[in-house]
Amino acid sequence: MEVPGFRAAAVDAGIKYEGRLDLGIIFSKASCTPAAAFTRNLVKAAPVLDSIMLLSRSETFRAIVVNSGNANACTGQRGLEDCQKIRKRAAELLDCKEDEIFVASTGVIGAFLPMEKYLNGLERACNCLSDHGLLKVSEAILTTDTRPKVAMREIENRGSIIRLFGMAKGAGMIGPNLGPPQATMLAFVLTDAVVDQEFWQKSLEDAVDSSFNRITVDGDTSTNDSVIGLANGNARNKVIDGYGELSKVFSSALFEVLQSLSEQIVMDGEGATKCVRVVVKGAATEEEARLCAQTICNSPLVKTAFFGEDPNWGRILAAAGRSGAAFEQDRVEIRIGDVSVVERGMSVGKEAEEEAAKEMKKHRFRVEIFLNAGKSDYSMLTSDLSTEYVRINAVYRT
Amino acid sequence: MEVPGFRAAAVDAGIKYEGRLDLGIIFSKASCTPAAAFTRNLVKAAPVLDSIMLLSRSETFRAIVVNSGNANACTGQRGLEDCQKIRKRAAELLDCKEDEIFVASTGVIGAFLPMEKYLNGLERACNCLSDHGLLKVSEAILTTDTRPKVAMREIENRGSIIRLFGMAKGAGMIGPNLGPPQATMLAFVLTDAVVDQEFWQKSLEDAVDSSFNRITVDGDTSTNDSVIGLANGNARNKVIDGYGELSKVFSSALFEVLQSLSEQIVMDGEGATKCVRVVVKGAATEEEARLCAQTICNSPLVKTAFFGEDPNWGRILAAAGRSGAAFEQDRVEIRIGDVSVVERGMSVGKEAEEEAAKEMKKHRFRVEIFLNAGKSDYSMLTSDLSTEYVRINAVYRT
Repeated sequence: MEVPGFRAAAVDAGIKYEGRLDLGIIFSKASCTPAAAFTRNLVKAAPVLDSIMLLSRSETFRAIVVNSGNANACTGQRGLEDCQKIRKRAAELLDCKEDEIFVASTGVIGAFLPMEKYLNGLERACNCLSDHGLLKVSEAILTTDTRPKVAMREIENRGSIIRLFGMAKGAGMIGPNLGPPQATMLAFVLTDAVVDQEFWQKSLEDAVDSSFNRITVDGDTSTNDSVIGLANGNARNKVIDGYGELSKVFSSALFEVLQSLSEQIVMDGEGATKCVRVVVKGAATEEEARLCAQTICNSPLVKTAFFGEDPNWGRILAAAGRSGAAFEQDRVEIRIGDVSVVERGMSVGKEAEEEAAKEMKKHRFRVEIFLNAGKSDYSMLTSDLSTEYVRINAVYRT
Repeated sequence: MEVPGFRAAAVDAGIKYEGRLDLGIIFSKASCTPAAAFTRNLVKAAPVLDSIMLLSRSETFRAIVVNSGNANACTGQRGLEDCQKIRKRAAELLDCKEDEIFVASTGVIGAFLPMEKYLNGLERACNCLSDHGLLKVSEAILTTDTRPKVAMREIENRGSIIRLFGMAKGAGMIGPNLGPPQATMLAFVLTDAVVDQEFWQKSLEDAVDSSFNRITVDGDTSTNDSVIGLANGNARNKVIDGYGELSKVFSSALFEVLQSLSEQIVMDGEGATKCVRVVVKGAATEEEARLCAQTICNSPLVKTAFFGEDPNWGRILAAAGRSGAAFEQDRVEIRIGDVSVVERGMSVGKEAEEEAAKEMKKHRFRVEIFLNAGKSDYSMLTSDLSTEYVRINAVYRT
């Protein structure tokens, strides 16, 4: 997978473990228009703070430097200075300005970056940039993930092709809540489109709100979640600014890329054996629909029932009842797949539950909760809670 | 353990499993002054709705009939009618009024009570009431609990003794949020004191707010959580009405009983290997202190770190950061036991973490988070999240 004008490379810098890719760089020959969204966690890692500061200062960007194994979070002034050192060195190596470089990190909170190893790795990476390097970067950013996550959409425009490529990482501490510049989920979106910055930013925010902000593995919003988009203009299309058909097609392709990455994250959630779409329908307000979906998606009892392939709708209904959404319990309907298991707040019967149990044997299934209290819907993706999740997190220090 | 004037019994009615106590009855020869608090979950089980209705109608009570194995929740009109049938039959057997009897249930949601077995069991229980039966009832109410939970305080008053006895069950679906008549945690408090109803109710609510409402196992507030107090006046003390020294002593003994039961619930939480007191200090408001403590106490990453005995303060700080509490990340301090692991938002060092890891090997320990953002504190008890929790809940239908 390539996006014309972008070069990339990844190396094993030995940041945490020896012999695995852990430092990546994405570089654009041309100046790029940026768009970004960062964690709303009050505790923000140094690279997040550094990137927010840069966005207030620079209009164009050239590169993203990213490492796994160390989040550079809760590292105070030294953490920020390390970001600056990385940008300064990368700027020398890449012959660009230090304010045009995003730094991103994921891994253990509270440890300083091993700067000597980091800067050595950075130099090696800059020396092996390639048009085919993006997939290697998508490997270098992984932590407890078991596989790389990438997505590509191509848009035909007047006989030529505009490309939208995304990569992401994330398996645990996944409960993204990203806002405009202000997970440890990291996602990078690269396009060769010519875009208007304001439209690019708004499109990215909208797409993030409908994708990454609607997934959860453990509900734990990270200090490092970052989505960074770079548009290098290589495709020389008429500027995409929110007007006309191309803008619609572009926004929709952007959403598809982020949605695909979101699904890949949940499917690869720590210890996950299931990927469940939870849809709350007929809430009184959108906020209540969201609260209800989030509470169900993060309930340990619901998630362990998913793991057990048990159509235990009582746990779903109990979670809805404590969510803050208003409804009448005897008006609720619940469906698992196409099987109605609850009507008027009560069990449809044993046979229906047996059918639902079959549906839950699938790797992916859908749960719909009809509150019948209004017109607002909300949809989220969640994983199950398995013994393996606990094992991973009781022994692995993220 | 006895409380003069109260008789009790428990039998194996076969409600879910054969050969274990699952139906209990507590009966007072004299009329009792009630006090109660019920789940704030919007989805309320039939016995909860039935009890709330009774409290608006009756000023005195004589009995509590309680079963495990079936929650009689999400059972619609039939569930309510079953409660009435139980009260009617118990009233005949006990020679009291049917509006003077609380019914309480815990167990599977969504199934109807097996009424024939229930009523047979009820008759057997009424026939073997004894002054020494309370401990058997404390066994009959258990579900995934591994042991009964009881607490007793005696108050000396003018040469005689006033007794306060409490029993509770609860191991999973523990995130109680109980309010005045309006957790599956069940608790019954019996006293032979003469009390003013208004003071008794207020004392119970205050004690519940400082005890049961500050514990969590999985954060899942149940449809059945109920705390019911009965005061039979057998001690013939001067009425306890909120004035004078005896009222203070009584309130404080009541809190101690509920606090003891709360701790026993967390210590016996499903799969729990740890009981951790999380204290948030120096939040800007009490609400923010509570949000911060609750978010930390329910974070899967924090709870798995407790299970792993890993002083992973980054997860604690990240949970605080997403909680909604306002603070500056570089002013936060964190202590595990007496060991300071975070100062000014950063690691104190490896040695401190090693010391903290030793502290976490204990069955019970304390985590303190100093936000340094104001003057409000909040304290909660939580368990860890173990592989055993997942196993219990993926195979057991609660």
